[in-house]
Amino acid sequence: MTDTTIRTNFANRGPVQPTDGAASVLRPGTRGRITSGLWRDSRSTNAVVSIPDGWDRLVEAGNIHNLELAAGTTTGDYRNDLPFMDSDLYKWLEAVGCLLGGNDPDSQTRERLMAHIDKSVAVLGAAQEDDGYLNSYAQVIRPDRRWLHLDWGHEHYSAGHLIQAAVAVARGTGRTDLLDIACRLADRIDADFGTGPGKIDGVDGHPEIEMALVELYRVTGEQRYLELARYFVDRRGHGLLAVARYTDRNFGSMYWQDHTPVREATEVGGHAVRQLYLLSGAVDIYAETGDKSLLEAAERLWEEMVATKTYLTGGVGAHHLDESFGDQYELPNERAYTETCAAIASVMLSWRLLLATGKARYADLIERTLYNGLLAGVSLSGDKYLYVNPLQRRDGHALPDGGDMRAERTPWFRCACCPPNVMRTLASLEHYVLAVDDTSVVLAQYISGNFEARIAAGPVRLAVATGLPWNGAVTITVNGPAGDPWTLVLRVPAWSPQARVTVNGSAVSDQPQDGWLRITRDWHLGDVVTLELDMAVRVVTADPRVDTARGAVALERGPLVYCLEGVDQPAGFRLDDVVLDPAQPIAVHERPDLLGGVVVLSARGRLRPGGSASGWWPYRSADTSTQLGPEVELVAVPYYAWANREPGAMRVWIPTI
Amino acid sequence: MTDTTIRTNFANRGPVQPTDGAASVLRPGTRGRITSGLWRDSRSTNAVVSIPDGWDRLVEAGNIHNLELAAGTTTGDYRNDLPFMDSDLYKWLEAVGCLLGGNDPDSQTRERLMAHIDKSVAVLGAAQEDDGYLNSYAQVIRPDRRWLHLDWGHEHYSAGHLIQAAVAVARGTGRTDLLDIACRLADRIDADFGTGPGKIDGVDGHPEIEMALVELYRVTGEQRYLELARYFVDRRGHGLLAVARYTDRNFGSMYWQDHTPVREATEVGGHAVRQLYLLSGAVDIYAETGDKSLLEAAERLWEEMVATKTYLTGGVGAHHLDESFGDQYELPNERAYTETCAAIASVMLSWRLLLATGKARYADLIERTLYNGLLAGVSLSGDKYLYVNPLQRRDGHALPDGGDMRAERTPWFRCACCPPNVMRTLASLEHYVLAVDDTSVVLAQYISGNFEARIAAGPVRLAVATGLPWNGAVTITVNGPAGDPWTLVLRVPAWSPQARVTVNGSAVSDQPQDGWLRITRDWHLGDVVTLELDMAVRVVTADPRVDTARGAVALERGPLVYCLEGVDQPAGFRLDDVVLDPAQPIAVHERPDLLGGVVVLSARGRLRPGGSASGWWPYRSADTSTQLGPEVELVAVPYYAWANREPGAMRVWIPTI
Repeated sequence: MTDTTIRTNFANRGPVQPTDGAASVLRPGTRGRITSGLWRDSRSTNAVVSIPDGWDRLVEAGNIHNLELAAGTTTGDYRNDLPFMDSDLYKWLEAVGCLLGGNDPDSQTRERLMAHIDKSVAVLGAAQEDDGYLNSYAQVIRPDRRWLHLDWGHEHYSAGHLIQAAVAVARGTGRTDLLDIACRLADRIDADFGTGPGKIDGVDGHPEIEMALVELYRVTGEQRYLELARYFVDRRGHGLLAVARYTDRNFGSMYWQDHTPVREATEVGGHAVRQLYLLSGAVDIYAETGDKSLLEAAERLWEEMVATKTYLTGGVGAHHLDESFGDQYELPNERAYTETCAAIASVMLSWRLLLATGKARYADLIERTLYNGLLAGVSLSGDKYLYVNPLQRRDGHALPDGGDMRAERTPWFRCACCPPNVMRTLASLEHYVLAVDDTSVVLAQYISGNFEARIAAGPVRLAVATGLPWNGAVTITVNGPAGDPWTLVLRVPAWSPQARVTVNGSAVSDQPQDGWLRITRDWHLGDVVTLELDMAVRVVTADPRVDTARGAVALERGPLVYCLEGVDQPAGFRLDDVVLDPAQPIAVHERPDLLGGVVVLSARGRLRPGGSASGWWPYRSADTSTQLGPEVELVAVPYYAWANREPGAMRVWIPTI
Repeated sequence: MTDTTIRTNFANRGPVQPTDGAASVLRPGTRGRITSGLWRDSRSTNAVVSIPDGWDRLVEAGNIHNLELAAGTTTGDYRNDLPFMDSDLYKWLEAVGCLLGGNDPDSQTRERLMAHIDKSVAVLGAAQEDDGYLNSYAQVIRPDRRWLHLDWGHEHYSAGHLIQAAVAVARGTGRTDLLDIACRLADRIDADFGTGPGKIDGVDGHPEIEMALVELYRVTGEQRYLELARYFVDRRGHGLLAVARYTDRNFGSMYWQDHTPVREATEVGGHAVRQLYLLSGAVDIYAETGDKSLLEAAERLWEEMVATKTYLTGGVGAHHLDESFGDQYELPNERAYTETCAAIASVMLSWRLLLATGKARYADLIERTLYNGLLAGVSLSGDKYLYVNPLQRRDGHALPDGGDMRAERTPWFRCACCPPNVMRTLASLEHYVLAVDDTSVVLAQYISGNFEARIAAGPVRLAVATGLPWNGAVTITVNGPAGDPWTLVLRVPAWSPQARVTVNGSAVSDQPQDGWLRITRDWHLGDVVTLELDMAVRVVTADPRVDTARGAVALERGPLVYCLEGVDQPAGFRLDDVVLDPAQPIAVHERPDLLGGVVVLSARGRLRPGGSASGWWPYRSADTSTQLGPEVELVAVPYYAWANREPGAMRVWIPTI
């Protein structure tokens, strides 16, 4: 795959119309259906519980009411007082669009969701101003301040989500009424912003519209949208948000991603989701324009982020305050913010970089983030969410009762960005499985299902069956164009130091290169490829500069990060007192009865005696000997499944000293 | 000192009128003058630079202007938009009162400061309403909302600081005009708050007035003030701030210290300064009423805080968000908030508990906190401050440019609570040196100077000369009542496992008990006591539950915590890459040229190779061997002196693995 660039115009979460290809606006590109396993279960819960419930939560929280206020069809107070309320609905609509584009929902659910789209389109259409402007918060709360609170107003941000929703709904259902509303708003923004006379030279405090405008360009072919996206990326980092008339909140230019131009940045910083949405938009513009300076910046920043500011789970964004990245190697575990939306944003960026460059590392990080940082963000029941995703929770953790975000599964949040973000990601998960170039089909993720793609020689269908993440067997039945050789490219995950591959029962001698195993041959209908990945338990340490993981290890198996939860350990001991003995073997047990069916790990350790060994002061001479208590068995469960039982202690990093 | 209770009515920062004693309102209790050494230098800078400059900062920041607005003597906007602006002035006035009560300032400075008091009294008198109410923010910004934003209004909080300032000014200068204003406001609060008919049953969102009212009771003898203080302590923790009409901000009841009654609390939590001011007030009430349930609660919470939530420096309050305590053993180093005000509040509580119980541990923590957590809060030059006091700063630390607090020395802050708090503490430092009971003089802190106290047999004067914190020699020349034996009580610090003591050259055979060495004898004029403390370098570790210090050590010597600063290390290496070898000897060097004159420590270590050893992903198999680089010399300086040169990396905890 080196030196091969996968067609970059798939750089989105949905089936996309190639800009260099055929004429129809809504022709699907790749499609697929996930048929079994952990992801099927998660997606099914998403379709049956999360998304249908989501509408009720939106109604309860006032998102619809607020738009009705803007439409003048109801009266009362604006609910919840956040300027991005509309975007919750938009992300939810995007999830619905993706869901209806797949095969999962039954007809009753489809009917119900279509009715919600009807209702949404009606209220959005009524709320939209004659000149195309649409943002219920600004319309209701400060109609005289349009485009004047650029830093905190979220006007472009919400517009971006409307555009993404409209594209997904159009692709999923064929209806274009929402797209018409989105285009009118995009046209308004295009008319009002830019460097020309009478235009506002400004950017929004929350990047997002850049990605959306590129997508809108792809589906409409309107070059203006691409140019506008490029303008927004180019103008960011020049202090436009420091102009007094556009300043509402004192978060600082780094928070807004306005501290340095994208192309000049040397490290990720500020609000994590803003940073990653911005870089995703930059890669989208590279994909359409070939502007390599944007790709170089995005790859450079991704490398810096992954090497120094990414948790083992793939989560990013260390600080609670400002939801921001910390310094390099500053990765607090119990105070990890690692917003669920930031994990999603990381997947969005990695997906674009995978398509732009063909490098397997991006697919590796996507896999890690999906299985751990992101999947932990929704409960197994599908009706509760985590906004913050710490890697440790103390015995006796005091849940905050004020403005601080609780690491506790919650049905909905006042700032409800994460739940519909999870919904749209799970509803479009099949699109991360395959990528293609003219002569290759790249299997980037191993998920059981039937997937389709089109290469130059014709359509390819792959039936994938795998026991992942519980066992490492993958079977791929190939159905593709015969006659000309083409290449099936299999990812050999970084976590699997060895992988045995066969085609129709014969071992493949090709060696993986840079994370990819390429099998080029004349494929015949029903050819069977098998892959056996290494599922040995891995005991891992962090870079020694990560102070918070010093003298500790974490357990991994396959794509999963594991954690200890208090509830699985013998009664009466505190996780804070656990010391793991990494020299002892770690056992693997299937537990179909537990947490929806998981594999647990069983390790040996010892307990520190309770209480302080040094009287009232907790610090003591370094040569004080430590007496450990009795040996204990420690049971670890997948991190994604934590906090689905009674609240209690949890830790990913387990001390060994 | 076991079972001996030092007279508890000294539970304040200034010389106090014993409530059970003589009649004069302003008779001094203990007095003293600090004559040489580190503390003399700090206090001199405080008197010559910090306090005089402070007035200019207050004028610049608008604190005086805001009061003039309330007085109607000027026009314009309320400056800085924080409801506690008045309290900055009050704390500064308290510092001035303490300063003028001592011998430090020259006559020109005295005159200038007296003029500032004149100006302050004039504007406060003009601003005060006819009914006694005084709070410029409420008067100017929301005159119709008096006592209606109890959670965030800081009305009682500011009143408390006014009272403390008035008491200090009265004691220091003899003038009572400020005290009259304070009493009128206290009377207003007393009339408006309580459980009687027509009264407001409520508490302020920021404890502080409790301490102040007890002090006002002590100087005025008005029982009402003590009763009001007790009412405020008793009613806290009953959800009074959750009453909608008193709710302005969504910080949560723990932030306001309204989540649980003081007597029922089992651990410290919420906003650190609020927690510690509340407990200080509770101990004051115990001191005057003998209500042991309050003392028991305060001691229990102090123990929990010190054992599980206190940094090596004595700093407390782990979280940036809400300036709050974290969980037990949650002590992030680089993200330590450890507000300077919280260190001061800890000293205030420990001082009260020392007086209430006579236990040496409270004096030990005061010493540690003064020398480290607190003294770091002001620059050596006296004109810049740290609000947050981290124990680590990364190479390449990105200073926030928005709402997050920077760990950078700053002339003043928008929220300027810390600078005048440092000023009043340094200006009253001599009062922490001595405590007495009827037959004993307790030397709680070793600071060079001349100190006076009164015991039943008569006045005692001690001339103390010490090389601390640089060497461990202490010489005490005693001048006290002859005829009857009395007891000189010397603290043997927890950090000094041995202490050699002589009286007039003869070794004392008494052994210290619970941290005190008691020498009872007929003292004669000019008797000389010497004490030699153990100044060996200490290599210390944290309780193993403190994850952020695992596999690391810190260096201490005498009362000082040391740190590595990048600027002292050889060029070209990053502190993040340092590994200390604790088996090698640590050298001690006097550096009179450095940082105002310090002793530095020189240790040996190695450097990790730069960059990641594992490619793009920073986590790797636990059995990967680590290659360390060349041996290096590491130079450590006292923590209090950090960040006084060019900005750079710093760390207290140094990895050993």
